[in-house]
Amino acid sequence: MDKPEPAPPAPASPASPAGAPAVPKAKKSVALSGVIAGRTALCTVGRSGNDLHYRGYDIHDLARHCQFEEVAYLLVHGRLPSPGELGQYLRKLQGLRTLPAALCAALEQLPRTSNPMDVLRTAVSVLGCLEPEAAGLPAAGARDLADRLLAVLAPALLYWHHFARNGVRIDPVSPEPTIGGHFLHLLRGERASAAEVAAMEVSLILYAEHEFNASTFTARVISGTGSDLHSAVTGAIGALRGPKHGGANEAAFEVLSRYRDPDEAEGDILRRLQAREVILGFGHPVYTTGDPRNSIIKEVARSLDRAGKLFAIAARIEAVMWSAKAMFPNLDWYSAVSYHSLGVPTALFTPLFVISRTSGWAAHVIEQRADGKIIRPSAEYTGPPERPFVPLRERAEGGGDGR
Amino acid sequence: MDKPEPAPPAPASPASPAGAPAVPKAKKSVALSGVIAGRTALCTVGRSGNDLHYRGYDIHDLARHCQFEEVAYLLVHGRLPSPGELGQYLRKLQGLRTLPAALCAALEQLPRTSNPMDVLRTAVSVLGCLEPEAAGLPAAGARDLADRLLAVLAPALLYWHHFARNGVRIDPVSPEPTIGGHFLHLLRGERASAAEVAAMEVSLILYAEHEFNASTFTARVISGTGSDLHSAVTGAIGALRGPKHGGANEAAFEVLSRYRDPDEAEGDILRRLQAREVILGFGHPVYTTGDPRNSIIKEVARSLDRAGKLFAIAARIEAVMWSAKAMFPNLDWYSAVSYHSLGVPTALFTPLFVISRTSGWAAHVIEQRADGKIIRPSAEYTGPPERPFVPLRERAEGGGDGR
Repeated sequence: MDKPEPAPPAPASPASPAGAPAVPKAKKSVALSGVIAGRTALCTVGRSGNDLHYRGYDIHDLARHCQFEEVAYLLVHGRLPSPGELGQYLRKLQGLRTLPAALCAALEQLPRTSNPMDVLRTAVSVLGCLEPEAAGLPAAGARDLADRLLAVLAPALLYWHHFARNGVRIDPVSPEPTIGGHFLHLLRGERASAAEVAAMEVSLILYAEHEFNASTFTARVISGTGSDLHSAVTGAIGALRGPKHGGANEAAFEVLSRYRDPDEAEGDILRRLQAREVILGFGHPVYTTGDPRNSIIKEVARSLDRAGKLFAIAARIEAVMWSAKAMFPNLDWYSAVSYHSLGVPTALFTPLFVISRTSGWAAHVIEQRADGKIIRPSAEYTGPPERPFVPLRERAEGGGDGR
Repeated sequence: MDKPEPAPPAPASPASPAGAPAVPKAKKSVALSGVIAGRTALCTVGRSGNDLHYRGYDIHDLARHCQFEEVAYLLVHGRLPSPGELGQYLRKLQGLRTLPAALCAALEQLPRTSNPMDVLRTAVSVLGCLEPEAAGLPAAGARDLADRLLAVLAPALLYWHHFARNGVRIDPVSPEPTIGGHFLHLLRGERASAAEVAAMEVSLILYAEHEFNASTFTARVISGTGSDLHSAVTGAIGALRGPKHGGANEAAFEVLSRYRDPDEAEGDILRRLQAREVILGFGHPVYTTGDPRNSIIKEVARSLDRAGKLFAIAARIEAVMWSAKAMFPNLDWYSAVSYHSLGVPTALFTPLFVISRTSGWAAHVIEQRADGKIIRPSAEYTGPPERPFVPLRERAEGGGDGR
């Protein structure tokens, strides 16, 4: 499971040719593709077409050997923790799970029908009012705030989840030592198995960091103005919510859940491809030959889906997409299988992505502050040339200014 | 007041040379400076060094002849309204001022000490839960949501303002026909004079739109993922909050309020310049020879500051900054004088910027959706090279992985 799938002979596909160059080409559907917008020491993506490193460590090593908190420590605090540091860090995060009463009261105002991403965005924004970042924005303070957010996001989300659905005010604290285990415990009201928690660890590690993706870039643009961490994370959640970004794991599940078996899936996907429909969960704006996270999350999905049906459908569609379009699944594809098998409601898939990626966002915010730059690009103007002003009384009814 | 100040003989200043070229140069403190990140038909900034146009109309004409709602209509709905359309639009906006009970309850949870920008960011995020954008994100729906936000931001902010300070639940509705008049009415609990409302109109028009500034670019990055308008505006508020962006008008007032008279200001500013201190409210990442909005807001400030002291201090510092550094004031400088003279608390200066700029942000979101692109730049990697993973038990206490 360490290496991506070998490339079969390449069918015609401008989007992901086999034998693609190591440096990704600019893509039509991506603005600023390949343009350097800043510096980072956090991550490299796709340097050989299909690899991923966090601070120089291969994602396969991190996913196989670490728990999520080690990776969060690596990203936010700068290096892999020693055993003593990891123990301290776990205790610190456990102590940061409590919800202020004012946050609970605000969460109770949000309807059951709310998008959970909007709830998380609101929770972080409210926390920015209740626990604002200190003036001067010191890096140490930002690291503490990042840890607070990493610890409190799942309790805040699941407090709202149970209150909005059942009117129950849950205890946001549990004895679970890890963020992933705590999430499953609060969701279910009981402990998850060790295998389930281990699956959560892998998933959270894979989602933690990914260079200048749209939500991370949002956090950096916000930070570039000298704004606070809560504002940066609030904006990043708003960006991750989009179906072309984090929302794709929910969309992937909607695709998978259409089908009763792999044969039905194959036929329908081929029809949709003929109709030039985009299948979410496939392809990537940076990777050219494969998503290195796919083989890892695929094994997680295989181990979790005991009935095997959803996994079989996902694997068949993967094969069809490759043979018909040379398109590879990205992390979202088998994440959808994994989360569903863990009993996570579909609307909470992208919030899990938030809980993980907050580690990467916070680390990028700290970098952007050290860089000291405001991010302010230019635009190509496509509007009307300079034109004379028309006073209100001279504007024709129904015709306005003759646009 | 239509033309920017003439340039005096140029002192040595790499930041803003007299006779600068029409195309702004990339600046060291700005990332992506001069790089095209997308298309817009909304605005041109500094094409001749110091001009500004909204959809082809000169900012001087708009500021002199329009009320803010005409400009918001131009930006959000695409053209200047006819007299009948403007009347309809004003009635529509007046009808959109009511606050949902759940929003009021959430606002009541936010402490008096909150940054009002955090309050506005939270208000928009809560509204995104209560009044979510329809699936499919149609442009007409986005325009309606933009109008809702334009109408409801001031009532939401001032509801919190009075509740947090005095425990009073104000009526968020007033008979004022305009957003600017309504803001002053709710702030004071009584009508403002026609001259004061007229000053608000000019200020709101000047702040409405400015191409790919950091907050607007934030809104576009968020929208590029297919996310909703509330997420985009929430993120944009977070970006505008920064002291290098919208927060500069509050910082400008802090500079002005230090001094008892113009002579004291001159001596102190010269000392600070010798110490290489940055004076907020001066210079601009795009304009090279002057901010075209300065002469307009300067006249507003002159007319509002009846005692004349604050204006005299501001004008003296303007003269000192020009003769010593060839730096010109930007819009924030005399906006600070104007807002203070209108009795607006300093912490509400940047929120007024939000109320105005929401028109530009929403128009950019609609454009970004039509463009259909995700915004995803690259990064220059400055971190460690690929390195072997060190298992937890082998990491030294206090030394970690040898960063």
